[in-house]
Amino acid sequence: MGLVCLDMEGVLTPEIWFETAKLFGIPELEITTKDEPDYDRLMKRRISILKDNNIGIDKIADVISEIEPLEGAKDFLDSLRRFTQVIIVSDTFYQFAMPLMEKLGFPALFANSLEITDGMITGYSLRTNPSKVNTVRALKSIGFKVISSGDSYNDIGMIKESDSGFLFRTNEKIRSEYPEIPAFYEYEDLFEAIKRSL
Amino acid sequence: MGLVCLDMEGVLTPEIWFETAKLFGIPELEITTKDEPDYDRLMKRRISILKDNNIGIDKIADVISEIEPLEGAKDFLDSLRRFTQVIIVSDTFYQFAMPLMEKLGFPALFANSLEITDGMITGYSLRTNPSKVNTVRALKSIGFKVISSGDSYNDIGMIKESDSGFLFRTNEKIRSEYPEIPAFYEYEDLFEAIKRSL
Repeated sequence: MGLVCLDMEGVLTPEIWFETAKLFGIPELEITTKDEPDYDRLMKRRISILKDNNIGIDKIADVISEIEPLEGAKDFLDSLRRFTQVIIVSDTFYQFAMPLMEKLGFPALFANSLEITDGMITGYSLRTNPSKVNTVRALKSIGFKVISSGDSYNDIGMIKESDSGFLFRTNEKIRSEYPEIPAFYEYEDLFEAIKRSL
Repeated sequence: MGLVCLDMEGVLTPEIWFETAKLFGIPELEITTKDEPDYDRLMKRRISILKDNNIGIDKIADVISEIEPLEGAKDFLDSLRRFTQVIIVSDTFYQFAMPLMEKLGFPALFANSLEITDGMITGYSLRTNPSKVNTVRALKSIGFKVISSGDSYNDIGMIKESDSGFLFRTNEKIRSEYPEIPAFYEYEDLFEAIKRSL
């Protein structure tokens, strides 16, 4: 019995922080794990920038509601959900991702959660760590053949832990570091590869 | 981070075997775990009845396509999926349940699978056993607070393993055997109980 674990940002939607930073016009918010590899320090910096700019969760939700899934993402997901089970496995936060899940027809999302006090983000909590790898392990332990796909370094563990896995819209650097993982750019090709693996 | 595990038959849809038996007009097919408590023997008897009547998977799919979700089930599920994650955890088979999942907006379904040879059902395979309890355990192991609901004996283990759990449209016998489990009849009441538990 097959089950597909799909990364969200970069695979189905744009990068939420990056888009939010652009929409707010705060270049400082555009820092990613590439600039600050320590995730906890990165998140604390982001939370402090939001606080300094007096940006609460309501304003963020307004901005996120303008972000659209990637072109073709919903059709791809709809086709996939017709013949297998799909779970979106993401390091994002529910509070950010839910408006995008609505636009994608509410697929199941396994993500993390923000701590919010008086409308301001004050912290975050990770569901499990390392979240994607542990999620695949748990799903395999209850009898699923897991196929996964993602675009970034934080997807490699999930892909390697799965029965089959594919890179999608990754960059040349990751592609050349992991030549053993098939890489696709078009939804059609990813769809066919998943179908063959099930 | 909350996640709701919902039983399918009796909670969101009618009992598929029972409805199928009625639609085919084969009373023998109406046997349930109440008549034959050994699940493996029950399934083998059903498979042999289908074979004797020359009923293949295509005919069954046609009949199942006539079955509708219970009244109000889709609205209930839609409301739930707007603010939490939902997984349908069922002892049914994907080949039977998918037309009903389509009518319910393709929620994620954790079920079992039939073995089909030349269009005829020849066997079945269970994803994990006991499937509902193991599923809740796996989801808890990756950081979810699990709330579950079901109507039958095969849901009790899942409900007890969850952080919170509710009986829904169960019978008096089960209700009186498990007075410690809150029991509801209306979707509205189940919805409010889930919301309070998250």
